[in-house]
Amino acid sequence: MIQANTLRSFTEQIFGAIGCSEADARLAADVLVSADLRGVDSHGVARLPGYVRLYDNGRLNPTPAIKIVHETPSTAVVDGDRGLGLVVGPWAMQVAIDKARVAGTGWVAVRNSNHFGIAGYHALLATDHDMIGQAMTHAAPLVAPTFSLDKLLGTNPIAVAIPAATEPPFLADFASTAVAYGKLEILQRKGQPAPLGWAQDADGQPTTDSNAVKNGGALLPLGSDREHGSHKGYGLGAIVDIFSGVLSGANYGPWVPPFATAGFMSANEGVGVGTGHFFGAMRIDAFRPAAEFKNHMDTWIQRFRSAKAVAGKQVLVPGDPERLMEAERLQAGIPVHETVVQQLEHLGERFGLKL
Amino acid sequence: MIQANTLRSFTEQIFGAIGCSEADARLAADVLVSADLRGVDSHGVARLPGYVRLYDNGRLNPTPAIKIVHETPSTAVVDGDRGLGLVVGPWAMQVAIDKARVAGTGWVAVRNSNHFGIAGYHALLATDHDMIGQAMTHAAPLVAPTFSLDKLLGTNPIAVAIPAATEPPFLADFASTAVAYGKLEILQRKGQPAPLGWAQDADGQPTTDSNAVKNGGALLPLGSDREHGSHKGYGLGAIVDIFSGVLSGANYGPWVPPFATAGFMSANEGVGVGTGHFFGAMRIDAFRPAAEFKNHMDTWIQRFRSAKAVAGKQVLVPGDPERLMEAERLQAGIPVHETVVQQLEHLGERFGLKL
Repeated sequence: MIQANTLRSFTEQIFGAIGCSEADARLAADVLVSADLRGVDSHGVARLPGYVRLYDNGRLNPTPAIKIVHETPSTAVVDGDRGLGLVVGPWAMQVAIDKARVAGTGWVAVRNSNHFGIAGYHALLATDHDMIGQAMTHAAPLVAPTFSLDKLLGTNPIAVAIPAATEPPFLADFASTAVAYGKLEILQRKGQPAPLGWAQDADGQPTTDSNAVKNGGALLPLGSDREHGSHKGYGLGAIVDIFSGVLSGANYGPWVPPFATAGFMSANEGVGVGTGHFFGAMRIDAFRPAAEFKNHMDTWIQRFRSAKAVAGKQVLVPGDPERLMEAERLQAGIPVHETVVQQLEHLGERFGLKL
Repeated sequence: MIQANTLRSFTEQIFGAIGCSEADARLAADVLVSADLRGVDSHGVARLPGYVRLYDNGRLNPTPAIKIVHETPSTAVVDGDRGLGLVVGPWAMQVAIDKARVAGTGWVAVRNSNHFGIAGYHALLATDHDMIGQAMTHAAPLVAPTFSLDKLLGTNPIAVAIPAATEPPFLADFASTAVAYGKLEILQRKGQPAPLGWAQDADGQPTTDSNAVKNGGALLPLGSDREHGSHKGYGLGAIVDIFSGVLSGANYGPWVPPFATAGFMSANEGVGVGTGHFFGAMRIDAFRPAAEFKNHMDTWIQRFRSAKAVAGKQVLVPGDPERLMEAERLQAGIPVHETVVQQLEHLGERFGLKL
């Protein structure tokens, strides 16, 4: 177990060591460690060596001049100047929030960025301002559209955060695939098979091989197969890709650059600039009085949480599991995987820093 | 086979007969028949008797005074005055388009409406203006959230329409469930079982009973079960419900009123006004020059459509199947189910009209 503060401080120092400003390093560390706190271990400090590798590869600018390149009252396009997505994301979200304050809503497409951590972190920033927050990003191609052998989409997550009154915010934050790639990686490490419906093999057939994606196969969209609606998960992933990539001027589809750790993907770039994201903020009182809305959200949340459940189970509201995990890990610390600890220590040695 | 024009004219006359204006009747008929043309038979003229039943029940106002009740530069809340959703929908979408012209984007939450037909019809209206269109609606509760025995959500569809240059628009239009309820109804009529993953029984267990939803069971969210991401489909359906219902001041969750044909659902109303929808329009050139964007959309579409496919299959772009069907049915006519023809003829007799 490692305390969140320890991880945060170490991560901040590493980002400082590659040249990030103090404020940027602190923010980036907060985004990463918030993933660990919420139990999304695949998107937390486990990725820190990857971000450093991005820097080593010359793809990451530690002191980006992030700027708005085009705007209207309710929209903007932001160029991330090859900065950390962990820093570009909150910057762009702030633009969306500022726009929403004046125009009712704000929508920001980002290009020339890198992996931005968990989408939910960014979406949640809006709820402090009595706004609904949205964040989405595309990612390197691991997913085959329905009937495709080619991998053309990333896991392309969407997050929507909605404030309530006495209840904590509703926070849906999910990949548009049946599972996140991290879940297959866990099974790979254990040498275990995957459930049918998570991946297909090189011939596009259902498989339980947890290494299938590495061996010419692909992750499957949410819905898994045509009969269970995989074309819907494909549609959802496609929307995320087009909003993040085509609308912003970033790359898109199979041309989205890999996150540094994914060695088996090609790094073709050719249809746009870097990786893209899309953010939105909607002021609640641009629709109805915020207090009234938030009271109804309490009713909504309480009705769903108190639903009659399958024996031995409980009906959860989106955001519940991550919030419960965060409360637990703030107390007990974060169970960082042994391999990850070794990688972090190794990284620390390089920069003369101790975990 | 019945020609689209014949169906459209008959439907228009029925709407006229219950008191709709000529323009409203024409529009409503166009929305309904467009569903039949695109192969979404469950949302076309098969629902006409249901709309008339809504009128008979006093829930439908044939001459609504639809109005904006609140607005900001990029948002509006519209009260549908118990009008046909088929008419309220395009009215609200026009408000979104007008807002987008000035503010870059327009977002319209609608309350006090009724069933609006296929979401894709409304979303597509934006593409003629070089805008991205979005349309979503909640519906009467048929769907159990993950681990729930209670039905708390509708099939809650989302449509996103995105213009291209030489290619027809990208149009994703899908329910947030594994399947539309209409697919179960088809199996019920044939006395056939359903695939596992479409519905659960009264104890929340997987079932192949195509009558399960009528017998205390429920439709399943996209993803089908927890292991395959049903919590994501549940999250998506929840977002649609909150945007359509809580943001607009309509009912929400289990309180959404039934569409007239669904006799096995309760008609509780109590947390808001009628049924709600949510619409969006984003001007492409609020982000980047429209011609540039649309050329990239051509590249996107062509890359996906030309993907290497599973033997005997073809990779489609969202919107392809419905457009191919429309081309075919414009030529060959629409194969209206015998039972539906009888119902329409029966309706015609009541008003002295011939199909």
